[in-house]
Amino acid sequence: MTKMRAAVLEEFGAPLVVQEVELADPKPGEVLVRLVACGVCHTDMYTASGADPSGYAPAVLGHEGAGVVEKLGEGVKDLAVGDHVVTLFSPQCRECVHCLSPKTNLCMAIRAEQNLGHLPDGTVRLSRDGEPIRHFMGTSTFAEYTVMPEIALAKVPHEAPLDRCALFACGLSTGMGAAMFTAKVEAGATVVVFGAGMVGLGAVAGARLQGAERIICVDLSEDRLELARGQGATDTWIGGDGTVDRVLEETGGFGADYTFEATGNVKVMRQAVESARMGWGLCTVTGVAGKGETLDVVPRYLITGRRVAGSSFGGVKGRDQVPQLVQLYLDGKLDVDPFISHRIKLEDVNHGFELMHHQDGIRSVIEF
Amino acid sequence: MTKMRAAVLEEFGAPLVVQEVELADPKPGEVLVRLVACGVCHTDMYTASGADPSGYAPAVLGHEGAGVVEKLGEGVKDLAVGDHVVTLFSPQCRECVHCLSPKTNLCMAIRAEQNLGHLPDGTVRLSRDGEPIRHFMGTSTFAEYTVMPEIALAKVPHEAPLDRCALFACGLSTGMGAAMFTAKVEAGATVVVFGAGMVGLGAVAGARLQGAERIICVDLSEDRLELARGQGATDTWIGGDGTVDRVLEETGGFGADYTFEATGNVKVMRQAVESARMGWGLCTVTGVAGKGETLDVVPRYLITGRRVAGSSFGGVKGRDQVPQLVQLYLDGKLDVDPFISHRIKLEDVNHGFELMHHQDGIRSVIEF
Repeated sequence: MTKMRAAVLEEFGAPLVVQEVELADPKPGEVLVRLVACGVCHTDMYTASGADPSGYAPAVLGHEGAGVVEKLGEGVKDLAVGDHVVTLFSPQCRECVHCLSPKTNLCMAIRAEQNLGHLPDGTVRLSRDGEPIRHFMGTSTFAEYTVMPEIALAKVPHEAPLDRCALFACGLSTGMGAAMFTAKVEAGATVVVFGAGMVGLGAVAGARLQGAERIICVDLSEDRLELARGQGATDTWIGGDGTVDRVLEETGGFGADYTFEATGNVKVMRQAVESARMGWGLCTVTGVAGKGETLDVVPRYLITGRRVAGSSFGGVKGRDQVPQLVQLYLDGKLDVDPFISHRIKLEDVNHGFELMHHQDGIRSVIEF
Repeated sequence: MTKMRAAVLEEFGAPLVVQEVELADPKPGEVLVRLVACGVCHTDMYTASGADPSGYAPAVLGHEGAGVVEKLGEGVKDLAVGDHVVTLFSPQCRECVHCLSPKTNLCMAIRAEQNLGHLPDGTVRLSRDGEPIRHFMGTSTFAEYTVMPEIALAKVPHEAPLDRCALFACGLSTGMGAAMFTAKVEAGATVVVFGAGMVGLGAVAGARLQGAERIICVDLSEDRLELARGQGATDTWIGGDGTVDRVLEETGGFGADYTFEATGNVKVMRQAVESARMGWGLCTVTGVAGKGETLDVVPRYLITGRRVAGSSFGGVKGRDQVPQLVQLYLDGKLDVDPFISHRIKLEDVNHGFELMHHQDGIRSVIEF
């Protein structure tokens, strides 16, 4: 049993409450991780707001974490005390029908229990005065420690700073993976990325690493577009109603080979579909839309050869591929540093939400 | 100059008028074809009704034709007098950026002029008392003869009866190709086909030829479902609001690997999206929706791994692949005969529309 500080969602729509909670020791197959850094992501804020119909409380939020293995449960095979790890809300058991397929990263091993806020055995490790608290996304990394199953931890090299590694736990991998693993952007391609937040910037970087020739990034903020240029965007545009027409004009009337939507706005998703090239353009949706909202597609766009796909965690098979993405950073092929706009303490997690709400910077990273 | 009988769209919403018109000789690269058979397809009726915003009149309708080469224009290389041919509203020049790509069949060579009702040089061969009449879909096969560019004619073996070949000019190839070339159904797959008209039945046949293990066909007509069983459907269901739930129930909660929409109804398109399997399900839309209608997709379906594609003429590269599909018929791998429900004369073309309107049978074929 570990006593620790954690940010608890007590009530939807209210600030998180940082307080002392208890964390039980890891059970078989589980690992105790001491968190070193954790990004503050939109999904945390979305759940805290109460907008997510599948949300629950009380729960310890946070899912973009990185840390050090402190203790192993029985039977843990692939991790050792002292290993550096990135937390995976999208695990990889390497045994289920999805893990065995090259087509998807949606591991089924613990999905049902994770969605209920439980660890794989259907119980929780978190509590307060003996009263259970639920886990969030299987991670609960707004805390000094977490217990997670081994299959949801990606081992990363010691030389990779853990504050940078945390970004690979969600946003950055989602964007990079969307370009590299879901869409499989081809060398020479023309790409449009809608949205230059963490995911969109990751998609720009991923498209560049795939050898795209032209990478147009569209956003409403000149500051974020500056960051997009830093990641390899060749064209940066302030978005608006005329964006689709502009894409068509600049691509000989055809549209872009690959488009990515990283805003969660269904109107922008529609622009992303309509900006995709006739014949073979692929639109990859990564943003989470509001409840009840739909992406409205004129079927004619499909009939004339456009495709629409989506990506969860960028199609990244976490244990295998997060280390590969981190290696790109270590090899100097990816500049992660500009993404960390604010460094905050766990006590300031609600300030992190405010910064995000005001679109101030790309990522606030909690340092423990 | 040939004098011939043809069915002319004089006025939207009114019956076609069968009458004598003139057809000029083929210009360079063009071919005079004597039509032997022509299917009556929904697209003809759709245009005749005035619902198609890109429609025009007067024009000679018809696009599902097969016939015999009668005369060659200058420079025609790949066809000879006496060859049997299938007309292609979707040509294959083998030279444009799309023809050179394996990703699409949307040949760009003559697209702009064809959409205007012209042959490739921007003029028409059809006239009446010296007044020009426009071509329809580059084919105008509701007529005893047609002049078409060589790149829009697929040569088929003499041993294939031309009445059967006509079906490969549109509906049958669209359905088969959607399964074989657009979706590339894999052996062992579970497939759902929505709609058992000509296109849906072709998709059933295509899925079977690809080695699909389970082929569920959904329609409102028990007669059509009987035909679907004949093409290889393993399960046939009367459709309704519960269809998606039933697909999920019968696939372990996952959905089908491949779904096909062949109705043009956007509500059915949505069912087809939502019936596709999480992780990798691909929904292929082939139907033409009404003006202004949209396929409304809940983004969550995409994020969890479903994809949506569309197919025009089944992704078939006509000159190369229509002969391959016809060969499957000649090899006994495809039973085309049940698709021909009515044989009519050109004078009865409006009756063909009525039969289609009343969903009486699959295809009326005009015999010349």
